[in-house]
Amino acid sequence: MAKNLTTRSEDYSKWYNELVIQADLAENSGVRGCMVIKPYGYAIWERMQAELDRMFKETGHQNAYFPLFIPKSYFSKEASHVDGFAKECAVVTHYRLKNDENGNIIVDPDAKLEEELIVRPTSETIIWDTYRKWIQSYRDLPLLINQWANVVRWEMRTRLFLRTAEFLWQEGHTAHATKDEAIAEAEQMINIYAEFVENYMAVPVIKGLKTESERFAGALETYCIESLMQDGKALQAGTSHFLGQNFAKAFDVKFTDKDGKLDYVWATSWGVSTRLMGALVMTHSDDNGLVLPPNLAPNQVVIIPIYRDQAQFEAASEVAEKLMKELRSKGLRVKFDNRDTQKPGWKFNEYELKGVPVRIAIGPKDIENGTFEIARRDTLSKELISATEVVDHVVDLMDTIQQNLYDRALTMRIENTTEVSSYDEFKKVLDSKGGFILAHWDGTAETEERIKNETKATIRCIPLEEDLMSGSCMVTGKPSSRKVLFAKAY
Amino acid sequence: MAKNLTTRSEDYSKWYNELVIQADLAENSGVRGCMVIKPYGYAIWERMQAELDRMFKETGHQNAYFPLFIPKSYFSKEASHVDGFAKECAVVTHYRLKNDENGNIIVDPDAKLEEELIVRPTSETIIWDTYRKWIQSYRDLPLLINQWANVVRWEMRTRLFLRTAEFLWQEGHTAHATKDEAIAEAEQMINIYAEFVENYMAVPVIKGLKTESERFAGALETYCIESLMQDGKALQAGTSHFLGQNFAKAFDVKFTDKDGKLDYVWATSWGVSTRLMGALVMTHSDDNGLVLPPNLAPNQVVIIPIYRDQAQFEAASEVAEKLMKELRSKGLRVKFDNRDTQKPGWKFNEYELKGVPVRIAIGPKDIENGTFEIARRDTLSKELISATEVVDHVVDLMDTIQQNLYDRALTMRIENTTEVSSYDEFKKVLDSKGGFILAHWDGTAETEERIKNETKATIRCIPLEEDLMSGSCMVTGKPSSRKVLFAKAY
Repeated sequence: MAKNLTTRSEDYSKWYNELVIQADLAENSGVRGCMVIKPYGYAIWERMQAELDRMFKETGHQNAYFPLFIPKSYFSKEASHVDGFAKECAVVTHYRLKNDENGNIIVDPDAKLEEELIVRPTSETIIWDTYRKWIQSYRDLPLLINQWANVVRWEMRTRLFLRTAEFLWQEGHTAHATKDEAIAEAEQMINIYAEFVENYMAVPVIKGLKTESERFAGALETYCIESLMQDGKALQAGTSHFLGQNFAKAFDVKFTDKDGKLDYVWATSWGVSTRLMGALVMTHSDDNGLVLPPNLAPNQVVIIPIYRDQAQFEAASEVAEKLMKELRSKGLRVKFDNRDTQKPGWKFNEYELKGVPVRIAIGPKDIENGTFEIARRDTLSKELISATEVVDHVVDLMDTIQQNLYDRALTMRIENTTEVSSYDEFKKVLDSKGGFILAHWDGTAETEERIKNETKATIRCIPLEEDLMSGSCMVTGKPSSRKVLFAKAY
Repeated sequence: MAKNLTTRSEDYSKWYNELVIQADLAENSGVRGCMVIKPYGYAIWERMQAELDRMFKETGHQNAYFPLFIPKSYFSKEASHVDGFAKECAVVTHYRLKNDENGNIIVDPDAKLEEELIVRPTSETIIWDTYRKWIQSYRDLPLLINQWANVVRWEMRTRLFLRTAEFLWQEGHTAHATKDEAIAEAEQMINIYAEFVENYMAVPVIKGLKTESERFAGALETYCIESLMQDGKALQAGTSHFLGQNFAKAFDVKFTDKDGKLDYVWATSWGVSTRLMGALVMTHSDDNGLVLPPNLAPNQVVIIPIYRDQAQFEAASEVAEKLMKELRSKGLRVKFDNRDTQKPGWKFNEYELKGVPVRIAIGPKDIENGTFEIARRDTLSKELISATEVVDHVVDLMDTIQQNLYDRALTMRIENTTEVSSYDEFKKVLDSKGGFILAHWDGTAETEERIKNETKATIRCIPLEEDLMSGSCMVTGKPSSRKVLFAKAY
């Protein structure tokens, strides 16, 4: 059990904050809204990065790096973009400090920048300013580029991973010769995100389109994946934007097509961030701590020796080393915790808190009986497995646990998705059980805004894969071609 | 041959700038002093990162992430550090923009930060402010952490990779219970850097200590590796610092040792940056373009089909696909360039410019004769190899080329390292051939400063492995216990 971890039923929000800190994922820093990602949290993020990076490269994308700073004037070139992003941001105005007459360090007023620099909140503008130099002909297209980077958005209310002033992410920025190609790219990337989130994070998602008012600033269409947390609130896990020719026009990026005709380039951008860490924690973890899916766990298996004396320790170590070697040869990430500074009970708690999928204990009795005690983190169950079967059993457990976590989360989501037909029912469900609510909406921003103001629920997405059953808007009674997905959201 | 590449003998500096741009490594951005690292350049950097990251993890280090911003007051806590770093830096003073009455975007004067934030030029201060919370007991030590990050130093004169306002790097920050352990860590890391630079970059280095005036701001000792470029100028490729208890004292980081005594923690920090890309280019490349060592080349082998008609293309493709598969099964990174939009001659030039170590051409005659034309980028030589031997031959070539590049660079360095006994001789050598110069120095900052002012040469390091022959200072005639290494430097 974790040290004084608040339970989810007591206070879900407090449980989350405590868990992130106690499990050594991240903590607040001395800089307002900026987090420190601790080694254990960063190791999980590195695993996410590795899998996503592989998927990006397998689909023809290359990595590059663009400047951290963006001149203020760049933002003004795309009108809706500046409204969406450039307002709440960190602004660099000076490039030097100096000592004042009292020896204090002050900003040197003589070192004021002619044009202020914005710390990138997203990189469309600086990247499209660069693409103008890279793209002349259809031969230069498609341009499929991704960047792993830090970005800054000056959020007033921050929470570790979910909303921080600085966060880590990847941002893809692609350029295409045709509208259809760009739309296909935006769709491909939301599918890759869904595949990653479902197969690696074991978090089921609903793919959909954002409504106009929820779209990325500068996009013609925003694709998203929406997931449901254990407290019944939704979390947007990734977005992919079809940007049309907006940025190409703003930055004058034209190309000559095969027939020699000049046209503006078509664009997409897409990103996921360290926010995924929050989704991972909030989907699977329990009152004992973190629960990690095997596909992302830095350690998939931990082996703990149980002993009273040096002879028992050596016997357990010998068995453990052999087992570790065998499991590693099967591709598993295994840790043997042979520290003598901590007792087995302390270690059990520690790895439970840290969400290691499988724990193997090896004591004198186990060695005598030729068995291992195998504990699963997802079910908190234990069983004795014979030495001859242990390797196959643990290898199989990786898939079993991965699948169980996904199934459990999917069941939770299905149980917490409600179809409603009236606004009263909508409000009742929202207050009582929360979760996803499918309801008819008349397609207007006014109604969307009214629902948001009255209930705090927003349209998470217009699902790509739901039934297209027409009906009438739950608020206005006007015709609606299909139900859309509502929820209160992170 | 590259398109109008200036030759090294014409203008080395211009050759470098043109090569970096023409080989698609990097370019200047619209933001003063900040570069765009292009996909090909970034792919090389990713290979550097992968190898270094592996070496760091094999020696027990973990990655983490600390904030981009550092409160101004943090810098003031370590006196020599603030002098060294906080002066020329990007300062964030505001957190919001707004529209003025004319609709222009301006910095909102109401959104001024209470305390200015510095964009990190290096992270000792923010990290040691964090370590205070992480370290209580000897059980928490050693703390071995690395960060991959972007940093900003407001350089007035910038050059791609060598000196840019923003650059990418890794910075290790470790905490230890004893002075000896911290020194051992600083030495281990400079050895790891040397191993990486010599074995992967094929760049020979001299390990040494910096003089007091060249030390990192806040360090008690700075270890460095120095390399010699083809123009006879030195380049510092990496540094590792023994920081003593300076940062622990500045940020009040104490620990309880095994006997219950409280003491300040001992520290190191160490880093290499995208500057290594500059060293890589300037050590090996020639007037035809980039020359990459096989251990870091994104493509180690490129296969180019030669054909006049579709039948010949298909025959060449079949042979190429088979060869590519075989080479890849040996672990090689191979590209088959079957684009029909470019001619073979264009492709030959392209891969020469991009430094691909081995080029294999497959034409109708080769297929008829059962041979392949193998071209080496390092020697620009070609030979015909029979189909039965080609795989083994190309696999062997990887080691041969890697070794040849290192040997060639080492020979160049040896030929351009001169021992001198008088200041006149020193100045003469410096003017005529440049390179490394070993000379006696009296150990004072005054003499060091005088030599620097009079000749622009600096003491690159006090070599760790040179003969310890005593003598007298070439300038003052005062006693000197050993020769030190001088050069003009990047």
